[in-house]
Amino acid sequence: MNALVFQESLRYEPRYPDPVAGVGEVLVAVKLAGICSTDLEIVRGYMGFTGVPGHEFVGTVVNGPKRWKGQRVVAEINCVCGQCSMCQHGLANHCRRRTVVGIAGRDGVFADLVAVPEANLHAVPENLSDEQAVFVEPLAAAFQVIRQVPIEKRMKVAVVGSGRLGLLVAQVLRTTGCKLDVVGRNPLTLGFCDRKGIQATPVSEVVPKGDRDVVVECSGAPEGFNLAANLVRPRGTIVLKSTYAGAAQLNLAKIVVDEINVVGSRCGPFADAINALARGEIEVETMVSRTLPLSRGVEAFALADDPRSIKVLLRPGG
Amino acid sequence: MNALVFQESLRYEPRYPDPVAGVGEVLVAVKLAGICSTDLEIVRGYMGFTGVPGHEFVGTVVNGPKRWKGQRVVAEINCVCGQCSMCQHGLANHCRRRTVVGIAGRDGVFADLVAVPEANLHAVPENLSDEQAVFVEPLAAAFQVIRQVPIEKRMKVAVVGSGRLGLLVAQVLRTTGCKLDVVGRNPLTLGFCDRKGIQATPVSEVVPKGDRDVVVECSGAPEGFNLAANLVRPRGTIVLKSTYAGAAQLNLAKIVVDEINVVGSRCGPFADAINALARGEIEVETMVSRTLPLSRGVEAFALADDPRSIKVLLRPGG
Repeated sequence: MNALVFQESLRYEPRYPDPVAGVGEVLVAVKLAGICSTDLEIVRGYMGFTGVPGHEFVGTVVNGPKRWKGQRVVAEINCVCGQCSMCQHGLANHCRRRTVVGIAGRDGVFADLVAVPEANLHAVPENLSDEQAVFVEPLAAAFQVIRQVPIEKRMKVAVVGSGRLGLLVAQVLRTTGCKLDVVGRNPLTLGFCDRKGIQATPVSEVVPKGDRDVVVECSGAPEGFNLAANLVRPRGTIVLKSTYAGAAQLNLAKIVVDEINVVGSRCGPFADAINALARGEIEVETMVSRTLPLSRGVEAFALADDPRSIKVLLRPGG
Repeated sequence: MNALVFQESLRYEPRYPDPVAGVGEVLVAVKLAGICSTDLEIVRGYMGFTGVPGHEFVGTVVNGPKRWKGQRVVAEINCVCGQCSMCQHGLANHCRRRTVVGIAGRDGVFADLVAVPEANLHAVPENLSDEQAVFVEPLAAAFQVIRQVPIEKRMKVAVVGSGRLGLLVAQVLRTTGCKLDVVGRNPLTLGFCDRKGIQATPVSEVVPKGDRDVVVECSGAPEGFNLAANLVRPRGTIVLKSTYAGAAQLNLAKIVVDEINVVGSRCGPFADAINALARGEIEVETMVSRTLPLSRGVEAFALADDPRSIKVLLRPGG
């Protein structure tokens, strides 16, 4: 099959071996896949991953149990053992023996075909376009924020970082009715917030007053963390959504003195994301800057890293 | 009066001006004062403090309202406005206009006399010695841990760092009946744990398995934070008790991927500390390595920074 492969560098490989579905797994033909910042980190060496990257996708089941065959699906990315202490305690996303689609120990979705556990599948409702469905995985991660931290209408909440993830998190937070604003660097993405009626401020104009109940850090930069620490009120909460490839220089004294709560947040509930998209609560299609054929994957990665684009999609078979 | 004064360097000053008690304040004659790691950080430049350091003490009220005069007291260290948004919301310890005894904007207790707000005073029960009472402030900070994070008997809890604060935190945690161990570098302080029946492991022998529900970071070192992140289980909690003077190089990816909760923790409930000492639940006197007269304060600071001592006390008028 055709695939993007990362090994020291990223390349397009038209003769990559087809994946083999293991026990309990299905084979899915990828229709559309999304490039996210974790993918960009991976090709910089994050997680020491080699193989086919990519974990955001929508596809059609081509091989598996009858009730799934031909179904349009999305799939959760953590492939778990069901046996370890984490799985047994209802924390399967933290399975101690997990592989993660396109991130750890398992080929991902920047390819014609991908094998995933049947248990990970979610059917895509008919009224969702492929361009919407491909956002289910990152949108689920955004919904994880309000699963971990209860957000109430009276609260002041800031999102630091107006990238792909920041825009999804901001839209999820807006559904709570809280007092929301987004701080970012990119006029393009801050403009997206403006159009959605979400208050957006360039980082250069921010004067932190330490008055936000909750700040969600989506910038992936150490300065973003330190800005979040200055925006949040004493005893407030910072939610960390970005994975940093390296160690970051951080000021922890502020966290101690102001007794701030820092909550790491990763994957989230697919059902919440699918439902919100189906109800039209979250706008994602307008976040798509470019859709390229898989064969132009290397170029697509460069575009995804360019502040002039928001979301870049890949289409296999193109 | 006699005082230790920090301005660029620490010196003993026998002609320092007496403090003047402001409105609502009392004057306390310091009987005994403790040197803690925050004091050591302060003389390295933390907080940019100048003046008389020191905030752990027991003393006798020499000037103030009748009902306090002659009383043996300890005092909370945050001097607050009562008006700001934090004070109004029951978070007075985070008062936006606070001064902090011997730490920020106000002279401290390494002196013959100190002025503190009457509202900050707590009477010391007769059955507590001065050597016990001088530990009320740091012990209250240790009790803050179990106020912020509910600890249950079934939980596995580790303390990283077996210094002054670590030993107090460990003793507080032991009162919960949780499965507890302390990881540290210092044979002297690990030996203290052993004698108290608290499991103690040298850091060189620790093989982190990511299985602790809660880890309390008391080492004040970046390696301590990174060790805590490796000891805690996914979705577990790290409590940060130490203030770091500078920015630290930290791996935040682990916090995000394992969805760890990091809780900053500072000052705590004096009543809990006084009650626990009065009930004999916490042993502090045996933590005292040396008691020096105030005039030998500079030497006492050096001793407090030496791993061969645990707690070093200062006695004014000596």
